[in-house]
Amino acid sequence: MTQGAFITFEGIDGCGKSTQLAKAADYLASRGIEYMVTREPGGTAISEKIRDIILSNKNSEMKNSCELLLYLAARAQHVSEKILPALEEGKVVLCDRFHDATLAYQGFGRGYPLDTLNNLNAFAVSGLEPTQTFLFDITVDIAFDRLQKTGSTADRLESNSRAFFQKVREGYLSLASSHSSRITLLPAEKSIEELAQKVQEDISDLIN
Amino acid sequence: MTQGAFITFEGIDGCGKSTQLAKAADYLASRGIEYMVTREPGGTAISEKIRDIILSNKNSEMKNSCELLLYLAARAQHVSEKILPALEEGKVVLCDRFHDATLAYQGFGRGYPLDTLNNLNAFAVSGLEPTQTFLFDITVDIAFDRLQKTGSTADRLESNSRAFFQKVREGYLSLASSHSSRITLLPAEKSIEELAQKVQEDISDLIN
Repeated sequence: MTQGAFITFEGIDGCGKSTQLAKAADYLASRGIEYMVTREPGGTAISEKIRDIILSNKNSEMKNSCELLLYLAARAQHVSEKILPALEEGKVVLCDRFHDATLAYQGFGRGYPLDTLNNLNAFAVSGLEPTQTFLFDITVDIAFDRLQKTGSTADRLESNSRAFFQKVREGYLSLASSHSSRITLLPAEKSIEELAQKVQEDISDLIN
Repeated sequence: MTQGAFITFEGIDGCGKSTQLAKAADYLASRGIEYMVTREPGGTAISEKIRDIILSNKNSEMKNSCELLLYLAARAQHVSEKILPALEEGKVVLCDRFHDATLAYQGFGRGYPLDTLNNLNAFAVSGLEPTQTFLFDITVDIAFDRLQKTGSTADRLESNSRAFFQKVREGYLSLASSHSSRITLLPAEKSIEELAQKVQEDISDLIN
């Protein structure tokens, strides 16, 4: 296999990306391939503390500029402390959200120019790009239905309106279109097993 | 008086800037001028939570890029939520550290290019510049002696070496030289009262 691979899983909340990431990890384990599972925002002790600030419902006063810089701070730590070292050891890194999420949520969702976001992100990631990205696309209505069924209390971000998530979804689709060689677009209303099969095939191609 | 004024107090730890800021506040109070005292990193509930992450000795794994983005996140919140509204109300805002500290500590101290820092900062501050800055200059030896006498436990940043603070001090002096109309350079080994008198005179000129 090639030296390390950085695979990211993207999509709006409720799209099923975390389930698929877990299945991809099982697949790598079954093949005896060294891998690491991680997530954004978070992934390191410091980044998880930053995540707590971002997601806490107590922080409803948070300005968009602060939120964005917190995401990037968490990412900078995550990349330097955890992702780059794992890739250097030749591991496959499976990451729940990365830079595309910033573009989709803060760019298309909150309205920041993509150029500004790309410049700020470049500082945070030390040049790291995903090897491959799986985007699980789903309608906002289905996503909200799924989230309600899990009964979990909405965090500060999930409290955003459907209109916001619609913009985020369209942003993701736009990114998939402009980065079609890196981003695999998957219709997330398909069954978990069908999606897992497709992800496995792509990962298999990537690491062989 | 003019509509609001944003006055920042800068210098390495132990330079006496916080004492002088308190004295400047007393002076404004004695003249019946509306003012607000604040500090960086911090100044709002969210920014203080970010400050806790930056300064905690538990976070010794923190990368410089993460540290920098956390400072900027705290600043973005501070500027939007607190400083700009106070200035719009016509208040004099006295702030313990601001952008010059980023340039001195992260630029001259940690080695980040000043251009990079200025670009990142521009995103965080929404165009805000201090009206006037007081820089309290002191040798690193005197500063360390003062800090030891207070007996306070060093936080994560104060645990840096004297060589680091020497670079920061020189950075501040360089900034004072290149922004001489905004930055008033004060030799901080002078007596508290002498320094307070000079600060009062400058503030009096500014607000009359």
